[in-house]
Amino acid sequence: MKIKQNIKIAVDAIVFGYQENQLFVLLIKQKYGDLKNQWALPGGFVKDDEPLKKAVVRELKEETGVKVTTMEQLYTFGDDLKRDPRLRVISVAYFGTVNPKELKLNAGTDAEEAKWFPLENIPKLAFDHKKIIQKAFERLKAKLNYQPIGFDLLDSKFPFSDLENLYTTILQKPIDRRNFRKKILSFDFIAETDEYRKVGSGRPGKLYVFKNKRYNDLLKQGISFEIKFA
Amino acid sequence: MKIKQNIKIAVDAIVFGYQENQLFVLLIKQKYGDLKNQWALPGGFVKDDEPLKKAVVRELKEETGVKVTTMEQLYTFGDDLKRDPRLRVISVAYFGTVNPKELKLNAGTDAEEAKWFPLENIPKLAFDHKKIIQKAFERLKAKLNYQPIGFDLLDSKFPFSDLENLYTTILQKPIDRRNFRKKILSFDFIAETDEYRKVGSGRPGKLYVFKNKRYNDLLKQGISFEIKFA
Repeated sequence: MKIKQNIKIAVDAIVFGYQENQLFVLLIKQKYGDLKNQWALPGGFVKDDEPLKKAVVRELKEETGVKVTTMEQLYTFGDDLKRDPRLRVISVAYFGTVNPKELKLNAGTDAEEAKWFPLENIPKLAFDHKKIIQKAFERLKAKLNYQPIGFDLLDSKFPFSDLENLYTTILQKPIDRRNFRKKILSFDFIAETDEYRKVGSGRPGKLYVFKNKRYNDLLKQGISFEIKFA
Repeated sequence: MKIKQNIKIAVDAIVFGYQENQLFVLLIKQKYGDLKNQWALPGGFVKDDEPLKKAVVRELKEETGVKVTTMEQLYTFGDDLKRDPRLRVISVAYFGTVNPKELKLNAGTDAEEAKWFPLENIPKLAFDHKKIIQKAFERLKAKLNYQPIGFDLLDSKFPFSDLENLYTTILQKPIDRRNFRKKILSFDFIAETDEYRKVGSGRPGKLYVFKNKRYNDLLKQGISFEIKFA
């Protein structure tokens, strides 16, 4: 069967990291062509024998050195015919979150042109990538209402205030802290440890860990978390 | 820029209709080629100068005569390399809902090979279309928790029991009717009329209408509807 169609398929990766009350997005500097030296999302063309999901993990690894195990499909961008000025490209965008450890990029290889940018300080980007990041951030925000979040974004042991700060950072407004604490604990996906860590100028805070099994069960089954704002 | 890539892009449409406590999906009979006479979702290849969203509305119209104003992107299917046995095709799937009036298809033109099937009685389908319908139904179900639903699926005037039946049909289990009524009314997106209609063997039920503006505002802003089951 011969189909006349001159459209190409790419994948793009939006990877979020979190550190000290800031969300970061991973970007790369374009190396070749008209768009040389412009910042953009990691991504590239899909190979003929490659599932979409594999393509995005491969591109991300090649261009930034960052390995992400689960990338979730965000949206397919293909309404704007000129989103790539060179030819018609439809991009299937995926997003994921990484551990704070990944926020340090390996020097050398392709990764030297990769960099983490704070979400509120993204440079001018190639293509429609700013719009794609905006959509990914909105999805992340919406997910707080129906899925537990934080497993990838926080250290494996964290004071409760870190989880709370993560939520307020994503939601961009203060929450009712008491209600938040009560609800989070009622979902039972984090557990207390016997360890403490000093946070800021206050008393040392008890450290928590995620309960992997329960966390993953809730990811599948969903939660209904009506966040109350302060 | 020359990119070597031999992958084609299609769009597929999942259109849901609702009548007498049943959800229906619109299917077409394949006319040509190896898959002739197999049922499948309406859809086809995207034109080079055509936004994805326009492509799906055009294909739907051409193949079934059904006009849908808003189609929402569901998911892009491109991990299974053999989902189309003929060549590698990535499909961007869209879903939408239609008014009960649309459940009668126009005879003639291409539409004579289109038919509504009850969701629980879908025939053998070409490609991975059964999987696509399953995913669309799950999305429809999930949407009940964060968006008002029913505007397209019900008559413009409807007894309250129709809305309730729509929810139990999609959720596939009985709900706490009192709690449901209280919550629906609290969102304030339907209004009473002065008209009544006899429903089943009971007393005539008061008819309701959707409050368009409020309904659309809630669509954008979202609701948080924790449905209680009976």
